[in-house]
Amino acid sequence: MIDVMTNNLKHLISAFQAQGITDFVLSPGSRNTPLALLLAERQVRLTVAVDERSAAFCALGIAKRSHTPVALVATSGTATANYWPAIAEAQSFHVHLVVLTTDRPQELQSIGAPQTIPQRGMYTTNVKQSLEINVQDPEPDVTEFIDYQVQQLVHQSQLAPTGPVHLNLPFRKPLLPTLGTAWPQVHPQEFGHIVGRLDSNSLTRLVQRLHGRKLLFFLGPNDHYDASTLLDRLAQQLHAPIIADVLSSLRGNLSATPTPNLQEFPKELWPEVVLRFGGTPVNATLLPWLKQHGIPVIQIGANYLGKDHSRWAHTSYNLTAADFCRQLLKTTLHGNPAYRTQWHQALATKVSSTPTELNEATLPQLLATDATLQQLFLANSLTVRYFDQVFRPQTPVRVQGNRGANGIDGTISSATGMALNQVPTWLVTGDLAFFHDLNGLQLARTTHVNLTIIVVNNDGGGIFSLLPQATAPHFETLFGTPQHLNLAAAAELVGADYHLVTQLSDFQAHVRESWTGLRLLEIRTTRTQLPPRKDD
Amino acid sequence: MIDVMTNNLKHLISAFQAQGITDFVLSPGSRNTPLALLLAERQVRLTVAVDERSAAFCALGIAKRSHTPVALVATSGTATANYWPAIAEAQSFHVHLVVLTTDRPQELQSIGAPQTIPQRGMYTTNVKQSLEINVQDPEPDVTEFIDYQVQQLVHQSQLAPTGPVHLNLPFRKPLLPTLGTAWPQVHPQEFGHIVGRLDSNSLTRLVQRLHGRKLLFFLGPNDHYDASTLLDRLAQQLHAPIIADVLSSLRGNLSATPTPNLQEFPKELWPEVVLRFGGTPVNATLLPWLKQHGIPVIQIGANYLGKDHSRWAHTSYNLTAADFCRQLLKTTLHGNPAYRTQWHQALATKVSSTPTELNEATLPQLLATDATLQQLFLANSLTVRYFDQVFRPQTPVRVQGNRGANGIDGTISSATGMALNQVPTWLVTGDLAFFHDLNGLQLARTTHVNLTIIVVNNDGGGIFSLLPQATAPHFETLFGTPQHLNLAAAAELVGADYHLVTQLSDFQAHVRESWTGLRLLEIRTTRTQLPPRKDD
Repeated sequence: MIDVMTNNLKHLISAFQAQGITDFVLSPGSRNTPLALLLAERQVRLTVAVDERSAAFCALGIAKRSHTPVALVATSGTATANYWPAIAEAQSFHVHLVVLTTDRPQELQSIGAPQTIPQRGMYTTNVKQSLEINVQDPEPDVTEFIDYQVQQLVHQSQLAPTGPVHLNLPFRKPLLPTLGTAWPQVHPQEFGHIVGRLDSNSLTRLVQRLHGRKLLFFLGPNDHYDASTLLDRLAQQLHAPIIADVLSSLRGNLSATPTPNLQEFPKELWPEVVLRFGGTPVNATLLPWLKQHGIPVIQIGANYLGKDHSRWAHTSYNLTAADFCRQLLKTTLHGNPAYRTQWHQALATKVSSTPTELNEATLPQLLATDATLQQLFLANSLTVRYFDQVFRPQTPVRVQGNRGANGIDGTISSATGMALNQVPTWLVTGDLAFFHDLNGLQLARTTHVNLTIIVVNNDGGGIFSLLPQATAPHFETLFGTPQHLNLAAAAELVGADYHLVTQLSDFQAHVRESWTGLRLLEIRTTRTQLPPRKDD
Repeated sequence: MIDVMTNNLKHLISAFQAQGITDFVLSPGSRNTPLALLLAERQVRLTVAVDERSAAFCALGIAKRSHTPVALVATSGTATANYWPAIAEAQSFHVHLVVLTTDRPQELQSIGAPQTIPQRGMYTTNVKQSLEINVQDPEPDVTEFIDYQVQQLVHQSQLAPTGPVHLNLPFRKPLLPTLGTAWPQVHPQEFGHIVGRLDSNSLTRLVQRLHGRKLLFFLGPNDHYDASTLLDRLAQQLHAPIIADVLSSLRGNLSATPTPNLQEFPKELWPEVVLRFGGTPVNATLLPWLKQHGIPVIQIGANYLGKDHSRWAHTSYNLTAADFCRQLLKTTLHGNPAYRTQWHQALATKVSSTPTELNEATLPQLLATDATLQQLFLANSLTVRYFDQVFRPQTPVRVQGNRGANGIDGTISSATGMALNQVPTWLVTGDLAFFHDLNGLQLARTTHVNLTIIVVNNDGGGIFSLLPQATAPHFETLFGTPQHLNLAAAAELVGADYHLVTQLSDFQAHVRESWTGLRLLEIRTTRTQLPPRKDD
């Protein structure tokens, strides 16, 4: 039976090998015993150097000559500080070193344990990235995280500007690994969890990989797709249907749809490979579903290298969507010729009817019918999800939201920033996000933007009713947090128009109305109306 | 008369404008008074937002919509901490914000002054880069640094992964700027101090800029030029002579020469534009000379963006040397047709004669004649400069040195790392650098590398005799630091061959000798033999 530490360290060493590391320079000690023994068992090219300063400069010399990242392995304490001069040289001259420091576990930190100094992030800005992993954590996702993240770390050292990276590894005793057990399979360099350029060799391999398959485009959140026309042309050439996140702003431009419920699709309509652009989807089920069914995901975009929290992206390409499309459009690559048509036929059977009442769920469809809609800002956390599910405008609409860190703060202020270009702008928000940025109303007033704020007021945090604490004691006090907001008074405070909208026809009239300045439209709902969803 | 602060802040605002920033979001306060007044005078697009949290989210909204960096301006203290939520969102969603925080001066830090919190680097890894500039420093180079570095900072926010950057600005009272004075000229986006991609528009402008001119290539230190053939082809097409740093390893491959003494060249042989590749030159006079004579420098290489300590590079291109060459080779661009020939004719008159004695200055030429030489490592700090001046091998030689941070530490260990590929390797070092890494000898011994170490022993630090402290009291104790090394004993310690070489013929015999393992060749010199040079 293999222990957790041995298993995870074998994954770690294998991830290094998958990223092309062949040279390891080891300075023996007690704390790095498990790595020393496993590296020896793996028969890597191992250089032993007792003096860590010497070891680090030696690794530097190897890396300078071989142009391949070299890994350093130190025990804990002052040993690690001896690496610093060579790390500083590597950072200045752009040499890729991968610095592994082993450490005492958390319960021995800062309390006078021997050979224990603050090692986490110790090289500060002299390294490009610093990471700590507890390899003795028995959670299986940690193993998968090692497979993915350790490869990303090595790749980070190779991205311009190239330079050193640091991985701190706390080990708890006993330090002897289980020797003689099986090693995990090393992912191949292409279509492992690796990022890279799309050069002519990898382009050839990519074309071979995709040719004739059922290909699906997923366009994630991105404030500025520089390639909407190219994406459309490429999708057509590849016979690939397109799913667009509501925050891609591309639903009104392309033949793109919201994310359907793929579980309801017959298996013959499942994609064989997904090309993913943009950031983390608003839809929380798509990436886990793809992973669960083993459908490979290829990620494109320099901003998104290594940013796949499902730890499933098979390859990430370090180039813009436009450059990726241009390169593939030059090839004769095409996907399964029937797939796009079949996909759209399946979707056509699921078209939703025109709403007959006004509530949080129908709001996206009601706004989508407004042909004059140009700019829309969506608050977290339930609002943006409702819109992601069904909002499908007939004309291009610029849609934005603060969906990087997903906070409920600053929503009105960000929408005001969006509206400073004098284009009439709509903000849809819940009452808690509205309250959190009440001061933003004053900014909207003093900047004279044309902003309509729809507050879907369910008097508290709707998302919590969908989370496990929904049945917890003190729910209203701790999670519901009803604020009993007087929205009319808030509007009065900043001299804004205010309307409580209860009828569908009234809402439609407000949508059609030509207006300037600041408006508040309040739609009251109750939290229990919300449909159950499993979400983050 | 314009005061230092006003002048430097005008340069700062102009640098922002040169990099395309048009939107500023200001939260008024006392400490940021000078920026507030100057921004108003400059008539930038200024949004005033009292609540800093609101201000930062508003800037986020503007940047998300406009895809252009937006600048934030805060007063000191907790005001700056209110920016943090929006900065975190910007970092996660890849939005380019430029965060300006104003601060109390250094003499008011950490001693209980009001509205004073630790602001330098306060946003930690939530920003891509953090910088502090004292704009009240009267040194003229600081103004030039602002012109250059502020533009680099803004550009950094736009490089993938895009994100926020931070500039902390301590101001000392009085805080009122001199209004109504002249503004500095804003550099144009191209051929200002700016970095960028070489897209088809900028390629066209570059070709127009270079066509028919006297063009010179400078190939700086780089462990791995991926484009030596392409560089050679491009230089020929452009009729451009090539200067190669000794640490480019390209002197034996290309028609490249060491850096000549350009001061001795007639003015008609001066280049009109220099294309600079690789890192900071070993030669310390070239970049200042180009700047002094107003000769534009264009820098190429993703690793070297914004890395020009002469603050003179007019444009930096974010792509590899190979990609740059490929793009230019597709054009019909050529330089002044006669220039390359004239340059080489001028150089031909300066060919040095074959050395007749053995010393530090003749060593590079003597080693260059060794046709079997494959790998050479050069120590800091005088050794690498001598070699840079005259080393010109007849065949390709891989030449390396630790020339990022230029330390004298770890030299033997790095040379050992270089030699681990079993190729016979030469290390040339002074006695101080040799002593500093004495432990590296043991590493060379235990790894069984084939390494010849030439120690040019002048019993102390030769460089200091060339610096201003050469005539200072206690010179030998504080700077010369003679170690009276017994190199024979050092060799004995690690079982290495040792030879004290005094005769040219003996040295040549050692060079010709076939050998394995570790050798020490000691050449004794005196420090006063060194020619005077002005260097760092």
